[in-house]
Amino acid sequence: MPAEPLARRLAAEGLGSFFLFATVIGSGVMAERLAGGNIAVALTGNTLATAAMLFVLITMLGPVSGAHMNPAVSLVAAIRRELGWGDAGAYALAQAGGGILGVWTAHVMFAMPVLEFSAKARTGIGQWTGEFVATFGLVLTILGTVRHRPQWVAPSVAMYIAAAYWFTSSTSFANPAITLARSLSDSFAGIAPGDVPGFVAAQLTGALAAAAAGRLLFEER
Amino acid sequence: MPAEPLARRLAAEGLGSFFLFATVIGSGVMAERLAGGNIAVALTGNTLATAAMLFVLITMLGPVSGAHMNPAVSLVAAIRRELGWGDAGAYALAQAGGGILGVWTAHVMFAMPVLEFSAKARTGIGQWTGEFVATFGLVLTILGTVRHRPQWVAPSVAMYIAAAYWFTSSTSFANPAITLARSLSDSFAGIAPGDVPGFVAAQLTGALAAAAAGRLLFEER
Amino acid sequence: MPAEPLARRLAAEGLGSFFLFATVIGSGVMAERLAGGNIAVALTGNTLATAAMLFVLITMLGPVSGAHMNPAVSLVAAIRRELGWGDAGAYALAQAGGGILGVWTAHVMFAMPVLEFSAKARTGIGQWTGEFVATFGLVLTILGTVRHRPQWVAPSVAMYIAAAYWFTSSTSFANPAITLARSLSDSFAGIAPGDVPGFVAAQLTGALAAAAAGRLLFEER
Amino acid sequence: MPAEPLARRLAAEGLGSFFLFATVIGSGVMAERLAGGNIAVALTGNTLATAAMLFVLITMLGPVSGAHMNPAVSLVAAIRRELGWGDAGAYALAQAGGGILGVWTAHVMFAMPVLEFSAKARTGIGQWTGEFVATFGLVLTILGTVRHRPQWVAPSVAMYIAAAYWFTSSTSFANPAITLARSLSDSFAGIAPGDVPGFVAAQLTGALAAAAAGRLLFEER
Repeated sequence: MPAEPLARRLAAEGLGSFFLFATVIGSGVMAERLAGGNIAVALTGNTLATAAMLFVLITMLGPVSGAHMNPAVSLVAAIRRELGWGDAGAYALAQAGGGILGVWTAHVMFAMPVLEFSAKARTGIGQWTGEFVATFGLVLTILGTVRHRPQWVAPSVAMYIAAAYWFTSSTSFANPAITLARSLSDSFAGIAPGDVPGFVAAQLTGALAAAAAGRLLFEER
Repeated sequence: MPAEPLARRLAAEGLGSFFLFATVIGSGVMAERLAGGNIAVALTGNTLATAAMLFVLITMLGPVSGAHMNPAVSLVAAIRRELGWGDAGAYALAQAGGGILGVWTAHVMFAMPVLEFSAKARTGIGQWTGEFVATFGLVLTILGTVRHRPQWVAPSVAMYIAAAYWFTSSTSFANPAITLARSLSDSFAGIAPGDVPGFVAAQLTGALAAAAAGRLLFEER
Repeated sequence: MPAEPLARRLAAEGLGSFFLFATVIGSGVMAERLAGGNIAVALTGNTLATAAMLFVLITMLGPVSGAHMNPAVSLVAAIRRELGWGDAGAYALAQAGGGILGVWTAHVMFAMPVLEFSAKARTGIGQWTGEFVATFGLVLTILGTVRHRPQWVAPSVAMYIAAAYWFTSSTSFANPAITLARSLSDSFAGIAPGDVPGFVAAQLTGALAAAAAGRLLFEER
Repeated sequence: MPAEPLARRLAAEGLGSFFLFATVIGSGVMAERLAGGNIAVALTGNTLATAAMLFVLITMLGPVSGAHMNPAVSLVAAIRRELGWGDAGAYALAQAGGGILGVWTAHVMFAMPVLEFSAKARTGIGQWTGEFVATFGLVLTILGTVRHRPQWVAPSVAMYIAAAYWFTSSTSFANPAITLARSLSDSFAGIAPGDVPGFVAAQLTGALAAAAAGRLLFEER
């Protein structure tokens, strides 16, 4: 990570999360409204938009702050001593704050109530397994690609999330901040507030497992 | 930007806008005709075609003229003194002229009346917010990517527009010349002439805000 | 172009055209069979497959033969003295021969009659304009990208064809050999034999116009 | 291939196959459930997810083990003396083992019975031709791209499989381990156990033919 000042790095995390979360929610609303009930068509639009925006944001903001936009990723960076613990906490706040603002802006754009809560139940062993696997794979992708092909991190993370939207039963949130923010949107990509803790627990467990696996697979010998 | 003569740069801007705007309109007509009423399916085709063409044109014409194909981008380039004000004005004329020719060519290809006006209402706070956010993000993407990863500008801009077609309620015009040109097509991608000024005002405001934000986020310290 | 022997270059052109044409026809059949009458969904599958295969073949075979797989491209190469006229003729034969074999193999895969003729009418000023514009843009894309960003030719050509499938009323054949080969398949991507000459004439005119425009836009000064 | 220890290489093959096969099965289940009977829409989701995951895994694991995730590819590597025969056998076991675990994890995620068998008939000359052509093209793509453009192997293989899902009548398994694993899933991407041998025979024949063709087309002279 280049030595940019903390303020600039936090601005990058906040702005990136703003655009990422606005894209997840906004494209979900757009897709569901237009898809005429064919949810696979809606998920295709949601996937294209999310993956494309991830590529853009990581390409542009990666050199500034690392472009985590995800507290689970910042946590692993802190464990690996690539980021101070205090900075990691500040990152998480910027991610949640910027991201929630993005959700609210999406609501304004689509003429929805700004403040609302999701009623979409997402729970159960299948979905928790999904979040564990999804976050495990995301963090491993980041660690492996940064280690061996650093110039390909942006397309790899974008493609990983595109795949994970489809191969996990939970459509792969894989991000505690986005899980929180999605609970504030009663739309296609939402999650009921009561189901947030289960998802976040599965995500953090997956991230920690990936940190361990990454050490075995990718550490310099 | 390489020191190509102005005539060649204007030809590149005109030709690029010709193909870009023909793609926006033509793929919109094709998609709507074939999609059997499923608008999300139509928007998927429109998105794929537009993003793909943006990638092609910026890759090919970027080294010639910068491949702006967008007066808002040329305006920001002039503010940043990367382009003279006279050149920026000439760019805008070439973009509008070449682009309108592209719209008319699309009409010929699809056996529509060459000269027509859109009847599609696109207005209101939600859509203006969409255009502000869309153009803000587009210009920021260009500034950040040119600064940190110049070789990735073409895929980044293409991916940004792909995402923005879905996450903004306005499907992201983000370009005053294309807004004008789309008012001349009574098809999927059109906009009623009376709604053009609101869109352009939101776009220019977003572009200026991005120029300021880009200075804070990406300026060499 | 590397100095590979002619036999190897012709094998590359034949093999590339085999896979490209088998993909155009085979994915068209698959898409139409599965799409339940929604032609935009079918065209999406056809577009993804064709663009993906073009990327693969140009990446792999470009260093061997140039990966033209298109007599219009070989013609322009001969005009620009990058390929001898005799070699260009041999290229065209290998492209047509390998490509027709690919069409027939697609028919075997999908349990269709090997030898058949298309009954799909594709004619009229709109479609000829489409073929002119499509081929003009394809050749210009090749010339500009080879000149300024040679390492991006494969994705650019693939993306160009993806866009052109949607923005032209003819779905962009842009290739005399593929036009001939498609007349031998009574399926989604076919063209009635009697409509082939009009398409080929429009394609060759577009290619020659692009050769001239490319000289103005991309020639070393 | 870098000189990573065998244990790490086998872990990479197992883990990669886990994620690849979980993606093939999981995205197939998700897509079929959501597509409302439009199989082309389902295949689009299945294609996007599979190709995206292939790109991610080859980018991340290629530098560790070669990222074969396919016994046919390991076989060709052994024939070309790029991998010892004992290592190739161990690779195949890791691929099948990790992959089957991935299939079972997908079943857990989607609340399906873990252990089941497919009832989907996939047989006949058309489909065997499809598997021969699909595997021939896959191995040739790997050999040609490794030879001429090694940095593009990940996107090329991903794009090849995306195209092959559509242009072959069998939707291109092209991988003996994945054929075996798919026989253990009674879902969209399954294959009846009795049809596995025919598919595997066609795949291995195609791989051997590609090894021969690759020598003619890509060998250093």
